[in-house]
Amino acid sequence: MNNIVITDPPKASAEDADELAAHGVATVHEALGRTGFLGPRMRPAWPGARIAGTAVTALCWPGDNWMIHVAVEQCSAGDILVVATSSPSADGLFGELLATSLAVRGVRGVVLACGVRDVGELHQMGFPAWSTAVSAQGSVKETLGAVNIPVVVEGQVITPGDVIVADDDGVVCVPRLSVPRTVAASQSRLQKEDRNRERFVAGELGLDVYGMRGELERRGLRYIPHQAWSESEGS
Amino acid sequence: MNNIVITDPPKASAEDADELAAHGVATVHEALGRTGFLGPRMRPAWPGARIAGTAVTALCWPGDNWMIHVAVEQCSAGDILVVATSSPSADGLFGELLATSLAVRGVRGVVLACGVRDVGELHQMGFPAWSTAVSAQGSVKETLGAVNIPVVVEGQVITPGDVIVADDDGVVCVPRLSVPRTVAASQSRLQKEDRNRERFVAGELGLDVYGMRGELERRGLRYIPHQAWSESEGS
Amino acid sequence: MNNIVITDPPKASAEDADELAAHGVATVHEALGRTGFLGPRMRPAWPGARIAGTAVTALCWPGDNWMIHVAVEQCSAGDILVVATSSPSADGLFGELLATSLAVRGVRGVVLACGVRDVGELHQMGFPAWSTAVSAQGSVKETLGAVNIPVVVEGQVITPGDVIVADDDGVVCVPRLSVPRTVAASQSRLQKEDRNRERFVAGELGLDVYGMRGELERRGLRYIPHQAWSESEGS
Amino acid sequence: MNNIVITDPPKASAEDADELAAHGVATVHEALGRTGFLGPRMRPAWPGARIAGTAVTALCWPGDNWMIHVAVEQCSAGDILVVATSSPSADGLFGELLATSLAVRGVRGVVLACGVRDVGELHQMGFPAWSTAVSAQGSVKETLGAVNIPVVVEGQVITPGDVIVADDDGVVCVPRLSVPRTVAASQSRLQKEDRNRERFVAGELGLDVYGMRGELERRGLRYIPHQAWSESEGS
Amino acid sequence: MNNIVITDPPKASAEDADELAAHGVATVHEALGRTGFLGPRMRPAWPGARIAGTAVTALCWPGDNWMIHVAVEQCSAGDILVVATSSPSADGLFGELLATSLAVRGVRGVVLACGVRDVGELHQMGFPAWSTAVSAQGSVKETLGAVNIPVVVEGQVITPGDVIVADDDGVVCVPRLSVPRTVAASQSRLQKEDRNRERFVAGELGLDVYGMRGELERRGLRYIPHQAWSESEGS
Amino acid sequence: MNNIVITDPPKASAEDADELAAHGVATVHEALGRTGFLGPRMRPAWPGARIAGTAVTALCWPGDNWMIHVAVEQCSAGDILVVATSSPSADGLFGELLATSLAVRGVRGVVLACGVRDVGELHQMGFPAWSTAVSAQGSVKETLGAVNIPVVVEGQVITPGDVIVADDDGVVCVPRLSVPRTVAASQSRLQKEDRNRERFVAGELGLDVYGMRGELERRGLRYIPHQAWSESEGS
Repeated sequence: MNNIVITDPPKASAEDADELAAHGVATVHEALGRTGFLGPRMRPAWPGARIAGTAVTALCWPGDNWMIHVAVEQCSAGDILVVATSSPSADGLFGELLATSLAVRGVRGVVLACGVRDVGELHQMGFPAWSTAVSAQGSVKETLGAVNIPVVVEGQVITPGDVIVADDDGVVCVPRLSVPRTVAASQSRLQKEDRNRERFVAGELGLDVYGMRGELERRGLRYIPHQAWSESEGS
Repeated sequence: MNNIVITDPPKASAEDADELAAHGVATVHEALGRTGFLGPRMRPAWPGARIAGTAVTALCWPGDNWMIHVAVEQCSAGDILVVATSSPSADGLFGELLATSLAVRGVRGVVLACGVRDVGELHQMGFPAWSTAVSAQGSVKETLGAVNIPVVVEGQVITPGDVIVADDDGVVCVPRLSVPRTVAASQSRLQKEDRNRERFVAGELGLDVYGMRGELERRGLRYIPHQAWSESEGS
Repeated sequence: MNNIVITDPPKASAEDADELAAHGVATVHEALGRTGFLGPRMRPAWPGARIAGTAVTALCWPGDNWMIHVAVEQCSAGDILVVATSSPSADGLFGELLATSLAVRGVRGVVLACGVRDVGELHQMGFPAWSTAVSAQGSVKETLGAVNIPVVVEGQVITPGDVIVADDDGVVCVPRLSVPRTVAASQSRLQKEDRNRERFVAGELGLDVYGMRGELERRGLRYIPHQAWSESEGS
Repeated sequence: MNNIVITDPPKASAEDADELAAHGVATVHEALGRTGFLGPRMRPAWPGARIAGTAVTALCWPGDNWMIHVAVEQCSAGDILVVATSSPSADGLFGELLATSLAVRGVRGVVLACGVRDVGELHQMGFPAWSTAVSAQGSVKETLGAVNIPVVVEGQVITPGDVIVADDDGVVCVPRLSVPRTVAASQSRLQKEDRNRERFVAGELGLDVYGMRGELERRGLRYIPHQAWSESEGS
Repeated sequence: MNNIVITDPPKASAEDADELAAHGVATVHEALGRTGFLGPRMRPAWPGARIAGTAVTALCWPGDNWMIHVAVEQCSAGDILVVATSSPSADGLFGELLATSLAVRGVRGVVLACGVRDVGELHQMGFPAWSTAVSAQGSVKETLGAVNIPVVVEGQVITPGDVIVADDDGVVCVPRLSVPRTVAASQSRLQKEDRNRERFVAGELGLDVYGMRGELERRGLRYIPHQAWSESEGS
Repeated sequence: MNNIVITDPPKASAEDADELAAHGVATVHEALGRTGFLGPRMRPAWPGARIAGTAVTALCWPGDNWMIHVAVEQCSAGDILVVATSSPSADGLFGELLATSLAVRGVRGVVLACGVRDVGELHQMGFPAWSTAVSAQGSVKETLGAVNIPVVVEGQVITPGDVIVADDDGVVCVPRLSVPRTVAASQSRLQKEDRNRERFVAGELGLDVYGMRGELERRGLRYIPHQAWSESEGS
């Protein structure tokens, strides 16, 4: 691995990030074309936060958080720190002191492909964190890594400057160049969902709202009364 | 897989379901004879709900929630929708719009052998959901499945019309024909537990409450003071 | 396995346990020398508890909680009950009635290398529990085990009389003979962290607080502006 | 759980089982309608065996193989013993002595939703076994279970008398009443695959053999030369 | 997801791939700078194969292998087909007929982030396959995906035209532009290892071959006779 | 963690180890009293080896194999090297060059709670290895650990000088002081199994060989003909 720190990568706009935060992870993921979701193992350390910001990335050796300290200096207001490890690790590479340091700089939260600790304190501070584990297991500062290179987290490539959106549903990454179209698509999706919600509240069925009945019949879905079915099964 | 929708299956009684809800999952599972529990991977999307209802089942292709839309129409007041997939999947096949549609019909909750999304919104709505994952990963509507056939969820067979009981301990399925005897057994168990609780509060030990001392001795359990044991170990 | 109950093992001091509880799991784990942590699979049944106490251990057969009933009698005020199984199991070996019995005796909580049930009731009672699973799956009382022998839980040896510290970050075990030096080390660590926190709040960076810049340079970490890096990558 | 042994269940025909063995797991699973497969965790203890036979089932308590001894008596020539546990366990409930006993009775193999041991000896004997784990962990004989009731193994219901087919791809269960139509469907599938194989060997593409091009175009699949695509991405 | 097929991507040289195959996965991974390894879940379907080739990629919907059929047409002699799924799946998307089709085209093997089936037949054909699962579970052809776009497999980005090296240790991906320097570095590494092997065979220790003693002492590693240590522990 | 190397620990006898190797893992595990087994995740790198030897232990930082190099010097003829990591890791900390170095010293094999690599070469050399993963992922030499202290591997404590027995069923650790009684118990167990095997070959049932029928009846196991059972179920 190249031991480098990339400085001043281009970033998506903070306003766009704010707008995506308002839409939430599920809507943004759909608007992006059903890609970019960091999977069900990436969970919030405490419930109820919904944030978005621009990614600063750190790639650490397992059990070693040295590069997080290097990455803090590359973070500024509106960023979200994203931590990957070069091979899988659940150790608690991030805790309250690093969160304090990030909060002072206006960083909005952290996303860790490893463990987080001091989760009680983070909740009290209101500092949002998503991680694949909660763990007090401590780390060393012995092996170099990299900062602000593209990393893979839970199956998704995250490039510095991309927008990260995170809430109780998990985390989605919107590539920087896709942000404007995703903002637009989220807005139309929201409007469509609002219209559909009204119809559902009025008792209409998705089968009719989405016009599915014809295609289901064409594909051969058959409706059978239970009485008839149980007789044929037993025969 | 047969692409069928079974209509009007026989269902357990709503009153029995209500009574089982009052007892909770652990008691009902014991009363049923220690079977029917859907295992520790099936967790609530938000804590504190305790419900019971009659199962309507949907069997979906992984990553595809088409059959959930078909199943909604088969649901009525007092039901719980149970979603299985034909092979394991953690994708978020169920979210707030489907919950809205179910809530309007009086459906009491949902149990998913896959992912759920919009968990913040579900919590706000008070719509209970249990699932093996939380995930925003979106789904398509391309492959048929089945509705209201028996399905296997986390090692348990669920037949439409069975009673599903769910709370913070997880989910248990009570087969329709076993519901009446399980209601009765839950009541006796409750009474026995109440009597035992009083004795525990008074400081009695389970060893005496359950009369275990004789059998333990017969089986050969030996009590050894630490001092004697540590000397024999070191020798 | 030897079917024995060791009585009256030596225990760490209750005052030391209280002091370690105040420091919390992450600090104690560091003070102990980054060992003793029970890993990220050991999670609280409900959030917000922070306790410490002296270990009483039970070793059970999978799916069998007989030895927990035997262990209760060996527990006294200030203890924490630690339950291991002879092979991995997620069954719910512990619930509300056992918690009632332990609470009456002044036991501070329970740590289970298996499942816990009645988690709603435990939360209401305020009885703290950590476990590797939540499960209503019931157990039998058929196979003997052992009480108050050293057990391995999630990779850590726990000897009766050791101090167990548990909070939202998980669980750490401090060997009895290491307790005094861990208390002292926790105190110095706390003071150092307080001093560092002030500097972080004032905007100083970890790179400077911990004096890392020289070593990072010596090891060859290079800073590259994004512009220069992306040109070299493309070539 | 009901502690019962069901004797003399109806069984599928031995000739049909032999024919399904010749087709192998993948073909039979397709012929059955893409159901019945016991998933990727069920693996052979040694490679190269391909068998089929009629299921005799045992339901054991975790860590307890008492019911396997009871089940042996219910097995006869042409059967396959299927072992489930009432909650998940990886313990080695089956080894060389039980295999000797089964082999003497003409039993064709064993399928275990738990661990197997003595795998070297089983290989030497040529006794086929599939399991979700290899483990020497020993078991007790303390808790009753059931024999020849329907069990769930890795998501599939197995009823005594069903045909089990097993090879290096895993294990599939064919319900007794579906065996005749599955035999027929396997034969047609085999013929179709043989015809298709010839065309593939001759260099034809699946796109043409299966006539997929029209539908792919109708759905909107677009072909883009790399040059054009990489220019548009960078813009 | 964009439903596109990228045609004619630039590829690494076949000669370089052949040379990397000769070195094997572990050496190439080290030579590349300890990156690019697809992790321990990616295992060979049968042991003993060692191949390298240029990547053609397919991105499939879970449980759907339609895009593999599209990808076959994009494959030519010297390629390795790499299959990713848009969310995790263990279904058997690839078997003997597809292998026949690929073998006819001179494709060297397949790497699947899902299941493979017909593993007995693939072994007999000598067609090499690596996958994260073995599974007979069948797939549909209903949902579009993409061919020859960059994909993430087990934490690594694979771009069409990269060199894939695979053997019993797993799979490594060498980015196309890094291939020449990796070939060179593999050669020097091989020479160094050959020299070191001679010294190890002669009985020299790694501590001396790699000159580690000084640094270990500087870092504070202490040697303590067992007698002295056990006395201090007990005190 | 204390960074120490304990030299010259007391070891079990080589003759006893040889005898235990002859019995194999399953028999030794039973003879020891059903403890000491390292679980089903610890698997051989290649099949067919059966060894025993005295443990030399190394405790490494995840992703760092420095301490293995230190441990090699502490190994002599008849030993087995056991490698633990301070937190879970699947990285390939051990390969062919280290195996060469150990083989020269007469070491009999290696047991790794992490990954192994060069498995093809190890097989060719005939050097036995058990591990929880196969992985080419490389390691650094940056963080100290310890050698010849007691370690926990897959739930078992291994103290230097204990006997490790390993074969295709996995790995068992016999504590040094328990070795003589385990040798004796293995011999009696073998004799008993030989006698029982004869009876099984002659067609006797375990129910009779082990005299289980009475106890099964006393516990209430009931035999029900299928006909009677299926009628009662349907009612």
